[in-house]
Amino acid sequence: METAEIIAVGNELLSGDVQDTNTHWLCRQITGLGGQVGRTAMILDDAPGITAEVRGALARRSRLILTVGGLGPTADDVTVAAVAEAANRPLALSEAALAMVQAAYDRFTRQGFVEDAAMTESRRKMAMLPTGAEPLDNPVGAAPGVLLQVDRCTIVSLPGVPDELKGIFGGALRPTLRRIFGSGAFAERVFVADCGDESVLGPVLAEVAAKHPDAYIKSRPQRFGPDVRIRILVSARGISAEAALRSLERAASHTRQALESRGIRLVPDP
Amino acid sequence: METAEIIAVGNELLSGDVQDTNTHWLCRQITGLGGQVGRTAMILDDAPGITAEVRGALARRSRLILTVGGLGPTADDVTVAAVAEAANRPLALSEAALAMVQAAYDRFTRQGFVEDAAMTESRRKMAMLPTGAEPLDNPVGAAPGVLLQVDRCTIVSLPGVPDELKGIFGGALRPTLRRIFGSGAFAERVFVADCGDESVLGPVLAEVAAKHPDAYIKSRPQRFGPDVRIRILVSARGISAEAALRSLERAASHTRQALESRGIRLVPDP
Repeated sequence: METAEIIAVGNELLSGDVQDTNTHWLCRQITGLGGQVGRTAMILDDAPGITAEVRGALARRSRLILTVGGLGPTADDVTVAAVAEAANRPLALSEAALAMVQAAYDRFTRQGFVEDAAMTESRRKMAMLPTGAEPLDNPVGAAPGVLLQVDRCTIVSLPGVPDELKGIFGGALRPTLRRIFGSGAFAERVFVADCGDESVLGPVLAEVAAKHPDAYIKSRPQRFGPDVRIRILVSARGISAEAALRSLERAASHTRQALESRGIRLVPDP
Repeated sequence: METAEIIAVGNELLSGDVQDTNTHWLCRQITGLGGQVGRTAMILDDAPGITAEVRGALARRSRLILTVGGLGPTADDVTVAAVAEAANRPLALSEAALAMVQAAYDRFTRQGFVEDAAMTESRRKMAMLPTGAEPLDNPVGAAPGVLLQVDRCTIVSLPGVPDELKGIFGGALRPTLRRIFGSGAFAERVFVADCGDESVLGPVLAEVAAKHPDAYIKSRPQRFGPDVRIRILVSARGISAEAALRSLERAASHTRQALESRGIRLVPDP
């Protein structure tokens, strides 16, 4: 299974001013593609810190590294420069990126969102890419995404504005995602146990999980209390939707049997 | 300023099954205490991975490391064992923790949430703490939080269930937080600029920020489009509420002047 790491950049995330929702959205997407996010991080708008984090992910041999945020025109948008440093690929003006930035400002000017489309230094900064990188068309905002291949690892830098991130992920990044994850697939099923005590379920689920290494079985209590039930998530990945579903069916039916044979009833998800 | 790191543990977070809200909540709390979260990570329920992450945070000399999740009774709850390994403090039964776990199950039994309060292996696991660690009373669930001092760094392991995490953070952890963060304070103000183009604001804000190293000034566009404005966050930290507010006032009034002198109007937050 191909693994990914996500690095979200932004002081406003760490100060608690903004709840990061991009990481969660990307985790769901990658899981749905049959991949596995192995680790995510949230770090400050600080170039050496971003460089260190990207180097760490490269050293862990992740297949895909997604950075989120810090692509804009302001001085504290330092992600692309930090990625360039981590990959030893000096920044250089990309004509393809510059054309995208210019086209975006032409569009914004026609729409009356900005005064004019002149290529200022701040705007040109968004076209400075690591040597050998490709820009990814941003259908919403001005800053292109950045795609950089470093040996077997693909590093993709996405903007932090959710609409822009989703636009690039679902658009220009599609072929790359298909190349990395192929036809991998993921399937899951949720059971709800009429039991408020996770310590009773623990040994049963551990026994089932040991017999299904291709599946993932996890109980999740919300809290103790009346009417509190425990959700049990059974999931499986495979090289095709059929393979994932077969693994899931085996693990799910074993989970159900093991719980019912211990007198634990399964009930509909409330 | 004292810095903290947060490590959230759980396969369900990385699969995208659950949006992690604990990290954001903790970031807000620590910022409010005058501290700074320097980095957060989200990692799998995997003991060697958790150990590596905690060791990384120790090497970065964070003053406070918060781990979240993986304290429960099931086999995939491995956080405390992984922290013990990272700190070289073998697990041992804590009588104080055992008393807390027993008291919790006595309470759940009286309330009818569980069948009985017998101390099973699964339940006793929650009382196995790194040598020298202290349990932190969990007012909601069964698993105590775990407080471990390693040289100048305080490692605190909190449960992933939000109500339990908040109960410990606002309760048993209070004295420790006061000891670490003292009377540190944080203040912030938000401006909204009647301008949809961050590339125009960039140079102005960079100039102001350079003159106020004790403050933090950040623009945040939502997206391009009609009626889209840019929020500008000005914040400052200080050793007291008064000091933070003074730094904030200086930076905020300078920000306002610099924007208005360039003809950028400030409008109420919609």
